[in-house]
Formats: sequence, structure tokens, C-alpha cells
Amino acid sequence: MIEINNKVDYIFYTNNTPNTYKIKLILLELEKKHSITFESRYINITKKENYSDEFVKINPNKKVPAIVDQTGEKPFVVFESVSILIYLAQKYNTFLPDFKTNPHENSDVITWAVWQAANLGPAFGQYFHFSYFSPTVQEYSLHRFNNEAQRVLRLLDDRLSVSQYIGGNEFSIADIASAGWLLYLNFAPIYKATKERFPHIFKWLDLINQRDAVKEINQSISEGFKTFNPSALRALFTDDPELINAKAPIGIENVVLKYD
Amino acid sequence: MIEINNKVDYIFYTNNTPNTYKIKLILLELEKKHSITFESRYINITKKENYSDEFVKINPNKKVPAIVDQTGEKPFVVFESVSILIYLAQKYNTFLPDFKTNPHENSDVITWAVWQAANLGPAFGQYFHFSYFSPTVQEYSLHRFNNEAQRVLRLLDDRLSVSQYIGGNEFSIADIASAGWLLYLNFAPIYKATKERFPHIFKWLDLINQRDAVKEINQSISEGFKTFNPSALRALFTDDPELINAKAPIGIENVVLKYD
Repeated sequence: MIEINNKVDYIFYTNNTPNTYKIKLILLELEKKHSITFESRYINITKKENYSDEFVKINPNKKVPAIVDQTGEKPFVVFESVSILIYLAQKYNTFLPDFKTNPHENSDVITWAVWQAANLGPAFGQYFHFSYFSPTVQEYSLHRFNNEAQRVLRLLDDRLSVSQYIGGNEFSIADIASAGWLLYLNFAPIYKATKERFPHIFKWLDLINQRDAVKEINQSISEGFKTFNPSALRALFTDDPELINAKAPIGIENVVLKYD
Repeated sequence: MIEINNKVDYIFYTNNTPNTYKIKLILLELEKKHSITFESRYINITKKENYSDEFVKINPNKKVPAIVDQTGEKPFVVFESVSILIYLAQKYNTFLPDFKTNPHENSDVITWAVWQAANLGPAFGQYFHFSYFSPTVQEYSLHRFNNEAQRVLRLLDDRLSVSQYIGGNEFSIADIASAGWLLYLNFAPIYKATKERFPHIFKWLDLINQRDAVKEINQSISEGFKTFNPSALRALFTDDPELINAKAPIGIENVVLKYD
């Protein structure tokens, strides 16, 4: 069963990965704005802790993040990062316009949050897998998911050329959803995403980087970069020590990807 | 600009693919329940009509489905299938419990709808790509996305062993989201998904198949199956006529996939 710690409002199951940073970010924002309290519990996926009986009871989908809301009569579990964002935004009536009074503004934010879950997340996730974690190079798939990642970045840059924030005129859960992945660009030009190629994304980064909660996430990402170790994750996909210990999938240096 | 047809409440941009069936299904449900009206406009992706200037103004993400709501003072566009479902459900206060009175029931439905967008949809989409549309066989990726599709089906079968509907005790947008993909199982054991392996998914299919709107979708899927032509889509990825005209990616017959 869920181990309760009644001293905090939320239990937050996490590790240092993009989807968990979304939830850490909204929890930090709510801590500042609504004085909520939360306790983080680290789930080590390289040790397959996400498959443990205890965690599967929290999230049958076996992934972080997940939260347990302990503010009600009974503990209530929410999983899927974008669903957690919608739940908390509705509960505290913040970062998401109310549908009753502003249906279109509400819908725009939901659209771009769901767009992140269905497009940006899968594209970047697969791009990372084939760039760092697949034991051998998979040229066709590397091109496929690089193309999709580039398409997503271009679209987002276009969106941010006409809208200050991703979901509209205000900071919202649409920004928080994409920030989980895009704050990494503060530290490294992943996906060859440079300021020159995507100026509006970097202008948006400058804007949200000013928020105290975002500064804390940037600190976590910066520390995570120092210990980034693709081998630990690659070991989930192969037993071959040569493939595990390589810096990148063997053969990837011969693949020339397209960046329009 | 958007061409208005003021005689109908909604313009529905569609074709005969899983994500569009979600929206056709909720529109048919609302037609019966709330007497809404809609006009369907077919976007042929094999002719790249989704890249046309007219369509990109509707959906910058260049994908069907999308809707234009013409019931207000100005036309309002919504894209991303799960966002469209949330918008229409909130607007007509149906197929989604109200957050104010039932926050946990609302959240469960949102979670399973977002889960579809972020897990089931990408898994099944990539599985289809590598099973039917990739010009040559990609063994690693075929295993990867078959494993993920099987994981998703097993999880959904487990969920439906303890919950009558996907999002809870009532038919909701969580069911509609997954139905877009799973109603195909009424006609063919795609992903080797048989009644023996996934009894609870088939019990749920029996339940929703009784709905008049679902019967109409089943009719469309059945007709679509008769003209299913992977070559037309494969031609988007290669110019080689031998690869285009093959029944399946060449070499796929030698790959033995795992079905636990």
C-alpha cells in the first residue's frame, strides 16, 4: 500500500529526467504561490525500481513522474505528467484559464500541453534513445526521429514568433510541459538547437529563466549533465560490455543527419 | 483564411485514420445527444494535402484531426485529438466528470485520455510505420515498438479487469481516445491482439460496440480495411518502385516478434 507521510501535501515520485522536471517545476511554483508542501521519492530506473510492486501500485504505466495527493480524506494518485499538470492547475486555479469564463484560452493551453505529450515528448524521447541508448546504430530510425525532433522545434519556434508564451499570453502548463525538455538547451545545443536556428525558443527561454522555480530546475539539470552516463541506460538494452561501455551507439559517427 | 459554412456548428478536418475516428465518434455522440451539426472535409495525406497553406492555417502541426467551432462570434480552431475531446466534453458537460464537483473522477478520465495520447498512440503509430510503411525492414525498431504496443495492450487489459470503462465507471473521452485505435480489433487481430490474450479489452469492445455512434465508426473502419493500401503511404518515404509496391517492408517475413 501507499506509505503515507501526513506531514506533506504531496508525495512526488521522480528522478532526474525531462518528464519529472515538469512536475518538479509546477510543485515549486505552487510551493511559492500557494504554500503547498511535498516530499520527493527517487525512483532509479537503471535499477528497474519503476517495476517494483510498490511503484506499480502507484503508476501501473511503470513510469515517473507520479504524485499522491494527501490533502483530501484519502490519498489520491495521479500519473502521466500532463494529466498531473492539468489536475494541479485546476485544483489551484492557476496556470490554466478557467473553461467556464475563458473556454478558448483554456483550450489553447490544453492543446499545446497535449501537443507536448503527443508530439514533442515522443519525438525527443525516441531521438534520445537512438542517439545515446540504442546498443548499435539504427540509421533509418535515427533519421526518422531526428527529422521529427527538428519538425517539432521548427513548429515551436514559429508558435513563439507570434505568441509570448506557448499556450498564449500568460505563463501556463503548456510552458511547463515543454520546459521539462527544453530547459536542457540552456546548457547544451542538443538536437543542434542553437539560438541562431531557433531564436524565438531562446527568447522564450530567457523569459522563463527569470522565474525562481525555473532557476531551481536549471540547477538540477546542470548537475545532472555532469553525471550523464548513457552506458547505465544502454545496459537495459544489451548484455554486451563493448556496446554498453561505448560513449555512443557504435557506428553513429558515420551518420550525417539533416538540419534544415 | 478559414472558409466558413454557417449552416453547421463544426467543420471537421479528417480522413480515415485512428486519430480522426476519435473525433468522428464524439461528434456522432453529440449529434445524437445534443443535436450538434458538422461537416467533414477530407484531407488526403498521400497527396500531402495536410501540408497545404489552407490546412496549415487550421493546424500548424499539419495533422488531422482538427475542428473549427462556428457556434461562437468568431470561428475557433482546436487541434490535437485529445485536446479536441477535452474541449467538446467541457463545452457540453458530457463524457468527462466536472472537476469542481468530482475532481478525482475528472482526473482519472483525463489521465487515461492523456495516457492514450502519450503512450498508446505513439506506440501503435510507430508499430504501424515499421510493420507496413517503412520501405525496408528495420528489425531493431520493429522489436522495440512491437514490445511497446504489447506492453500498452497488457496494461489496458489489466485496467479493464478492474474498471468497466477505461476512465472509470462511465463511458468517457478516455474510452473514445482509445477506441479510435482499438475498434480495428473488431475486424482483424492487429498486434496479434486476440480475445484469448486480452479478454478484458474484448469485453469492453462488446460493451461499446452497442452504441449507435460506435456502430457507425465500425462501418467506416470495415470499409477502410477493404481498400487498405500500404504502398500509397510507403511512397511518402521512398522513390524506389520495388519497395513501394511490396506488400510489406521487404525482409519482414524473417523477423520473429515476441508476444508474451
